[in-house]
Amino acid sequence: MLETKGYAAFDANTPLAPYNFERRDVGPHDVLIQIHFCGVCHSDLHTAKGEWGGAMYPVVPGHEIVGRILKVGEHVQKFKEGEMAGVGCMVDSCQTCPSCNEGLEQYCVQGFTGTYNSPEKGMDTPTYGGYSNQIVVNENYVLKIREDQDLARVAPLLCAGITTYSPLRHWKVSEGHKVAVVGLGGLGHMAVKLAASMGAEVTVLSTSPSKEADAQSLGAHKFVVTKDENALKQVRGSFDFIINTVSAKVSLDMYASLLKRDGTMILLGVPPEAPQLHAGTLIFGRRSIAGSLIGGIAETQEMLDYCAEHNILSDVEVISMSQINNAYDRMLAGDVKYRFVIDMSTLQHA
Amino acid sequence: MLETKGYAAFDANTPLAPYNFERRDVGPHDVLIQIHFCGVCHSDLHTAKGEWGGAMYPVVPGHEIVGRILKVGEHVQKFKEGEMAGVGCMVDSCQTCPSCNEGLEQYCVQGFTGTYNSPEKGMDTPTYGGYSNQIVVNENYVLKIREDQDLARVAPLLCAGITTYSPLRHWKVSEGHKVAVVGLGGLGHMAVKLAASMGAEVTVLSTSPSKEADAQSLGAHKFVVTKDENALKQVRGSFDFIINTVSAKVSLDMYASLLKRDGTMILLGVPPEAPQLHAGTLIFGRRSIAGSLIGGIAETQEMLDYCAEHNILSDVEVISMSQINNAYDRMLAGDVKYRFVIDMSTLQHA
Repeated sequence: MLETKGYAAFDANTPLAPYNFERRDVGPHDVLIQIHFCGVCHSDLHTAKGEWGGAMYPVVPGHEIVGRILKVGEHVQKFKEGEMAGVGCMVDSCQTCPSCNEGLEQYCVQGFTGTYNSPEKGMDTPTYGGYSNQIVVNENYVLKIREDQDLARVAPLLCAGITTYSPLRHWKVSEGHKVAVVGLGGLGHMAVKLAASMGAEVTVLSTSPSKEADAQSLGAHKFVVTKDENALKQVRGSFDFIINTVSAKVSLDMYASLLKRDGTMILLGVPPEAPQLHAGTLIFGRRSIAGSLIGGIAETQEMLDYCAEHNILSDVEVISMSQINNAYDRMLAGDVKYRFVIDMSTLQHA
Repeated sequence: MLETKGYAAFDANTPLAPYNFERRDVGPHDVLIQIHFCGVCHSDLHTAKGEWGGAMYPVVPGHEIVGRILKVGEHVQKFKEGEMAGVGCMVDSCQTCPSCNEGLEQYCVQGFTGTYNSPEKGMDTPTYGGYSNQIVVNENYVLKIREDQDLARVAPLLCAGITTYSPLRHWKVSEGHKVAVVGLGGLGHMAVKLAASMGAEVTVLSTSPSKEADAQSLGAHKFVVTKDENALKQVRGSFDFIINTVSAKVSLDMYASLLKRDGTMILLGVPPEAPQLHAGTLIFGRRSIAGSLIGGIAETQEMLDYCAEHNILSDVEVISMSQINNAYDRMLAGDVKYRFVIDMSTLQHA
């Protein structure tokens, strides 16, 4: 077993603190990655605070992982020691169901193994995530990362990037489409960059007028304050797609009414309380509301290559490991542009 | 003006009763149709009873109309006197917007002119529907009807038929698809027949075990009682499409959870109270919920031709005009298989 140093939530209410634990030895199909950077996703916070239920404490969060391969198992074919690698939200799945066979491991009918807080196959312990110095992962769930990039800014692509890239590709967003993005956080800011890079005209819908300059600097072409009834009226029935990243209870009807005929709103966030949906909003325009979950491994690699080629990176604030609790407080206050990323070299001093 | 005899609701609470009114003269692009049969849609009842608001009394309902052309205007090109014709939910639209140009008049951005209870273009009166001896309609909103059919059973195709045919075609339902139908009423029974005729495996989902034999006789391959938790569990994640015809408040999440990954539930009914929707139901399966409204004129003709070719007809109970109030009571009690159709020759004695 591999002695590993990390940071964990020990229960729902106390701050995260140092935690030493063991990882499995490097199996024949595994790679061992020394973690350089780990993004801080809202899921980390929800799970650490037990808000989604089922927290298996101690929880070591983190599923936006970038680092260097220290060792590869004897049958590993895709990776070599010394290469830069990434790990996202999944570290395993059944590999036999139709979804896995189609490269859609996120919809594995058995349920995929999450990078943290999932039962680890063949072990009595849960999986532990990227708030740690190293991780052991089956090579099929490891991504290749180009080195000539700002790697702290690459890390959030492993969750926020793929979660927005996948629906944009699935629904074939391209030039000529009008895309609205709701929620300018970790996911939303990536949705703006990605949709704009694909040639769409991007509008940010926000409750807060103060975000207009930020939206424009991210690449948005238009900005609409949703509290402004007149502004809202002008974009009614105008969008081909709405990427809705908000996980608060919002009006599905209000947003759906902004879709064109045959338009689709894609939900990426799960509000704790379910909003209402009036069928008429969909019927009188043949509109759709859909959901999308992260993305498959092959598509995640495609996204990483696409972002490297198009110089698309997350906007981040790099923090040290010991700042994580303060970072959680700031996330709850919406005070981050747009992703905290932990510099994992700071862990040894934490 | 043309003296016309019909049946109308004079307010929300009293029974429908005879009503004499005037229709416009036959214009250069109009046809005059002597109405033989008119189907009785739930919309008729909702509008007559003022349940949807905006009732312009007296309301002459009816938008499932089949009859013979008595006269054509001088510029009419598609129809000749003596031919059998149909009229559905629409009698006009702007004819210039993108939806109209694409043959999707039901989504006309100006709003289409309903066959009844809509402001009639160039008139001070509302449109009056098919509970009457004759109707004057612009030829662009008139359908051709083959005579060698049971015409009473054709009438409901003009609304119930096209409302279910259109989404089945739009979402390309075909052999190999598993389709569930919720609600075995006027729309639902047509959805079963049409989906089965397109090669899909059709399952009827019903709260009532007593409907199984009926479902099978309509062509359904399977039947699931939704109150039976075990039966429901067995079809979870199994349907490519769900055609939801119910206009009562039902659980969107329960039904959506029965969809496969990438499956779509299409809503055709508008519940008065909006149900909740949990985003997670869609996200963990990339599922969609969509709505669909009747169908365009060209597609309605396609549907009529398809049904004539495949011998698909509505199951109806033919009534006389004077039985309409009793028919409304029976519809509210769910006591109709599956559509009342008024024999309009009975109007002269009503």
